[in-house]
Amino acid sequence: MSVTAAQGFSAAGIAAGIKESGGPDLAVVVNQGPRCAAAGVFTSNRVKAAPVLWSEQVLKSGEVTAVVLNSGGANACTGPQGFQDTHATAEKAADSLNSAGYDETGGHGAGTVAVASTGLIGLPLPMDKLLPGIDKAVAQLTPHGGEKAAIAIKTTDTVHKTSVVTHGGWTVGGMAKGAGMLAPGLATMLVVLTTDADVEAPVLDASLRAATRTTFDRVDSDGCMSTNDTVLLLASGASGITPGRAEFDQAVQRVCADLARQLIGDAEGASKDIRIEVVNAATEDDAVEVGRSIARNNLLKCAIHGEDPNWGRVLSAIGTTKAAFEPDQLNVAINDVWVCKNGSVGEDRELVDMRYREVRITADLAAGAESAVIWANDLTAEYVHENSAYSS
Amino acid sequence: MSVTAAQGFSAAGIAAGIKESGGPDLAVVVNQGPRCAAAGVFTSNRVKAAPVLWSEQVLKSGEVTAVVLNSGGANACTGPQGFQDTHATAEKAADSLNSAGYDETGGHGAGTVAVASTGLIGLPLPMDKLLPGIDKAVAQLTPHGGEKAAIAIKTTDTVHKTSVVTHGGWTVGGMAKGAGMLAPGLATMLVVLTTDADVEAPVLDASLRAATRTTFDRVDSDGCMSTNDTVLLLASGASGITPGRAEFDQAVQRVCADLARQLIGDAEGASKDIRIEVVNAATEDDAVEVGRSIARNNLLKCAIHGEDPNWGRVLSAIGTTKAAFEPDQLNVAINDVWVCKNGSVGEDRELVDMRYREVRITADLAAGAESAVIWANDLTAEYVHENSAYSS
Repeated sequence: MSVTAAQGFSAAGIAAGIKESGGPDLAVVVNQGPRCAAAGVFTSNRVKAAPVLWSEQVLKSGEVTAVVLNSGGANACTGPQGFQDTHATAEKAADSLNSAGYDETGGHGAGTVAVASTGLIGLPLPMDKLLPGIDKAVAQLTPHGGEKAAIAIKTTDTVHKTSVVTHGGWTVGGMAKGAGMLAPGLATMLVVLTTDADVEAPVLDASLRAATRTTFDRVDSDGCMSTNDTVLLLASGASGITPGRAEFDQAVQRVCADLARQLIGDAEGASKDIRIEVVNAATEDDAVEVGRSIARNNLLKCAIHGEDPNWGRVLSAIGTTKAAFEPDQLNVAINDVWVCKNGSVGEDRELVDMRYREVRITADLAAGAESAVIWANDLTAEYVHENSAYSS
Repeated sequence: MSVTAAQGFSAAGIAAGIKESGGPDLAVVVNQGPRCAAAGVFTSNRVKAAPVLWSEQVLKSGEVTAVVLNSGGANACTGPQGFQDTHATAEKAADSLNSAGYDETGGHGAGTVAVASTGLIGLPLPMDKLLPGIDKAVAQLTPHGGEKAAIAIKTTDTVHKTSVVTHGGWTVGGMAKGAGMLAPGLATMLVVLTTDADVEAPVLDASLRAATRTTFDRVDSDGCMSTNDTVLLLASGASGITPGRAEFDQAVQRVCADLARQLIGDAEGASKDIRIEVVNAATEDDAVEVGRSIARNNLLKCAIHGEDPNWGRVLSAIGTTKAAFEPDQLNVAINDVWVCKNGSVGEDRELVDMRYREVRITADLAAGAESAVIWANDLTAEYVHENSAYSS
């Protein structure tokens, strides 16, 4: 399943020795065609890891024949040597795949191999382990290797994340790691989606951007933006079917939404998944701005952790935005109880049941007809612990 | 000391029964003139508490004869009744002060009484306790009551905060409560400064705005903006001295900086005070934007708590800003060790000693000659605990 649910892809996940734990840390995904179309979306952080700078270049051609992903090191803030290491990784993968006979699409070159890395920033990758690991992974490539690949890209993830949508004759599938928005922090998000639909690169690009805009981009676990976030969509065309555009967009959207929800559900140290819906906004941008402000309010995140329906903190978060609203017309519901009406006390907060993991906050701006949903997590002592002890 | 260090002021702090604990919760500061000039700076949150809306109006006249401050309730998001309660508070204070013979400045009216409140949002104030408390406080007004007033405005503060600067013949003093930036969250910042210098309201205003811009405005404990933040500066003119403008500005600046530093030093649950200096920025705005982005990065705040000189998180925070810089020219020092040079690995991170409470981060943007200092705190399990259990 995962990246090998669609026809035309093989994958592998192995332990190359990059992680000190000795766990799986290297994945290879190869597109066996007949088509090698691809699109990518990357972190908007201006401090970008070497693999992001590399893969952005690769994706410009709209063609990706293989992807190498490693956990155990982000290869970010590693200077010119870091970029050379990514280049060497892509070259090694191309050579290894060509040597192993993966030449269905005319052979691999470094320029069509995307690279993604995740782990600690500011440490050089152990290339003496990574490069031999590529040979090992290529030797284990199978059309059923998607699960192992998904496991090999985990860092602090407690479970691996995969999703598949199948339509009449064609499939979109994928894997993800991380816990946060398209651009979280420690928990860099790496996603590889594959499809056997026969779709050209510009369509993949438009479809992927539309999907990430309302899924991964609206998952905001801790407000921190990574240097490494990468979302790739590869098409093999192996089904021989070119789906209708709307149908294809919808399938990509569904897989992205499913993976995004899984990321929030496994965020570091979180005990609650918070679905923030902003309604009746003047513009979609307003709705997103307000949703993000609520999502990032540490005091509110603590309150949710304490199962305290503290709507005052929602209002103070809304008040920091530039969105169109009048303070005395704001309404806020927590788990469907309208605890704030017209900017003041509403229904009895004792009615709010917050025992379950999913918490729904609805913010009604009473300023228009637009809306947006942002997903976030609560703030917990476990989050603090996990992130204060990470690199020690 | 505190607000009564300057001549011409009396103050009191008493327990009115607003706090369930029975502790001190009501303070009155009265200006006995001969001058009653005043200036104020308030939260920029668009959701403003009733006392902020009230006091903003009062300050428009440039005249304040008295200030009533309460802890135990923010009177925010309390609708029209909340505003009426603030109005009633000001009227009661004016009546009580007039009855008690505090008519040195021609008598008090509600329109010259500023009000400030702090505590939980969304609960009406117990006016049956607050109004009688005003009589009680007025009965206890003394020219030595500054300390008691400073104690009565505490909420989660572990210590009360005061500061005094005396020049030849004139004084600026003040009190503060809270733990955060000019606009924190739970820990609303209330500050009252007094001076016996003979200074007119427009000068007070300019001086106060200049001082808060680089002190309270650059203290960012947890990135959350309050509905209630209030900073007032009252001048009695009782010294009969009109200081030189630069000299006066400097005194106000020093008191503000001292109080701001005390706020950071007593932030909720914090174990570290983080001084973030951004240097070689193209503009001061760039320096502030970068400093704030670093100050609000939860992952970095956790790392500092864990005494981990995780400069990668500093870089990823800088990368989210629009400031002028090149990623490969960024330099970062933690406690004076340049752990990041040219956007990559610098001096050995093992050299960084982070045992002490104060941690200094220097971010060199290599893009100009401007700089700014932002103060923040680390993120701890105690912060989570204190803020998840607050209203329960």
